[in-house]
Amino acid sequence: MENLYKHTIEIQPRFNDFDVMGHVNNTVFMNYFDIGKVSYFKAIWDTDLVDWQEFGLVIARIETDFIAPILISDRVVVRTTILRIGNKSLELSQQIINPDTNQLKAAARTIMVGFDVSTNSAEPITEKCVEAITRYEGRPFKREISK
Amino acid sequence: MENLYKHTIEIQPRFNDFDVMGHVNNTVFMNYFDIGKVSYFKAIWDTDLVDWQEFGLVIARIETDFIAPILISDRVVVRTTILRIGNKSLELSQQIINPDTNQLKAAARTIMVGFDVSTNSAEPITEKCVEAITRYEGRPFKREISK
Amino acid sequence: MENLYKHTIEIQPRFNDFDVMGHVNNTVFMNYFDIGKVSYFKAIWDTDLVDWQEFGLVIARIETDFIAPILISDRVVVRTTILRIGNKSLELSQQIINPDTNQLKAAARTIMVGFDVSTNSAEPITEKCVEAITRYEGRPFKREISK
Amino acid sequence: MENLYKHTIEIQPRFNDFDVMGHVNNTVFMNYFDIGKVSYFKAIWDTDLVDWQEFGLVIARIETDFIAPILISDRVVVRTTILRIGNKSLELSQQIINPDTNQLKAAARTIMVGFDVSTNSAEPITEKCVEAITRYEGRPFKREISK
Repeated sequence: MENLYKHTIEIQPRFNDFDVMGHVNNTVFMNYFDIGKVSYFKAIWDTDLVDWQEFGLVIARIETDFIAPILISDRVVVRTTILRIGNKSLELSQQIINPDTNQLKAAARTIMVGFDVSTNSAEPITEKCVEAITRYEGRPFKREISK
Repeated sequence: MENLYKHTIEIQPRFNDFDVMGHVNNTVFMNYFDIGKVSYFKAIWDTDLVDWQEFGLVIARIETDFIAPILISDRVVVRTTILRIGNKSLELSQQIINPDTNQLKAAARTIMVGFDVSTNSAEPITEKCVEAITRYEGRPFKREISK
Repeated sequence: MENLYKHTIEIQPRFNDFDVMGHVNNTVFMNYFDIGKVSYFKAIWDTDLVDWQEFGLVIARIETDFIAPILISDRVVVRTTILRIGNKSLELSQQIINPDTNQLKAAARTIMVGFDVSTNSAEPITEKCVEAITRYEGRPFKREISK
Repeated sequence: MENLYKHTIEIQPRFNDFDVMGHVNNTVFMNYFDIGKVSYFKAIWDTDLVDWQEFGLVIARIETDFIAPILISDRVVVRTTILRIGNKSLELSQQIINPDTNQLKAAARTIMVGFDVSTNSAEPITEKCVEAITRYEGRPFKREISK
């Protein structure tokens, strides 16, 4: 499963990511996954600057499993890949792990949908987007109707 | 469905909740749901101060559906209820809505599990917790084996 | 000194405002002062929506004194007023206090300067802005050359 | 002036550090300076884990000058040094710059005071702390009475 993830980024923690129990707050896990997503799409588009207005994808759903607390002593990385590309949506899979121990901290499944900001309406995933993902991941994506 | 939610709290937005598109950032929705959760448990325990060490519940899973963007012009509230209490887990249901238009912005389903911080191990939901929820919600909860 | 402040807003705390010591993190005080500033300028412009592009003011300097920690048991409000209006800058004074005990938690002095976003250059404080502040504060402001 | 700063850390930006104008929000500058401070004290104590309860320093005052906006296209680093050690306080100097252009984004001067968490009272800066700073900075600090 591990080698599914071509993309990994280490997180730089901030002091107030940690709550009174000395754990990274649940809400902050979302920031960590977000850092992974932004970095992933930069890698795919091969650009330092993703133009989110042109980007054509918005987040529709996130499912997150919290497996273990992140402590102040933990180094953590986020791994990101795309599992499936449908007609109007794609499915992103992410993990937060401690790379020193390989302990899984949290996992997230994110559904992103094609969206045209200028017309404010749902759109199919663009071919350009599918090509960029396919090139980066180095494996074919059979387009299917997403749920 | 609406009258399921006895508990509602209005969110005080912060200027940097909003991203470059003028929308509340996806990660910040988690903070809003969190404000709802803390306020809900304060109401249930009838206390201004929830002792999280004694609290005996941790978040295991959150599923979030992002329905509509929250704009700077939106007022938003979070509604929270508990749908189901199992043996070792309970299920929380939350919505973010604009109370002026009743527009649903996002919905979340959260699984919390019984946990003893002192022994660092999973525990059944305490009877005290079930009673507090039952009293607040004013409806019976049939205990069942949680998934 | 207290009656200097016509504008007061209570802060809605968020669970991860608090750090491992159970205190509101120093960086989060800035968010609290920011909530005060946004609310103050809404009151002055008598609008729910401040158009920050048109607003014509940017923050040049903030001096903050941290007097006492904010604990989870504290209610806090932010008080805001404008002390001085110069030619190209104005000086905002703010306090964070616990309104139940009147304990001063922190004080901030903020220098804002006139700025035209469209030309990206410093500008005098607009007369419209001076009038709005004077009307709200109910006391005259002698315009002077700001430092 | 530049070589005053032995300690530099690059900041990993987060998507919602940026506000509707596409600039890092003023409040987030504090997080950036905070990352610099934590990293600096880790370097001084030569430890991955600063025990803040034992640490013996709290922030009394921060003065921040906002010089230029941080854009999404900017890389930024925080530089940190200690300028002065008094009897009961020390003075930290920090800059946020774009290392590619050397553009200064913001500067901060922070006063930290000796503090014993167990007795909740002000304390002189410990000799151990002075030694650690002197060793790291590689220059002598004449102890003087702080203001």
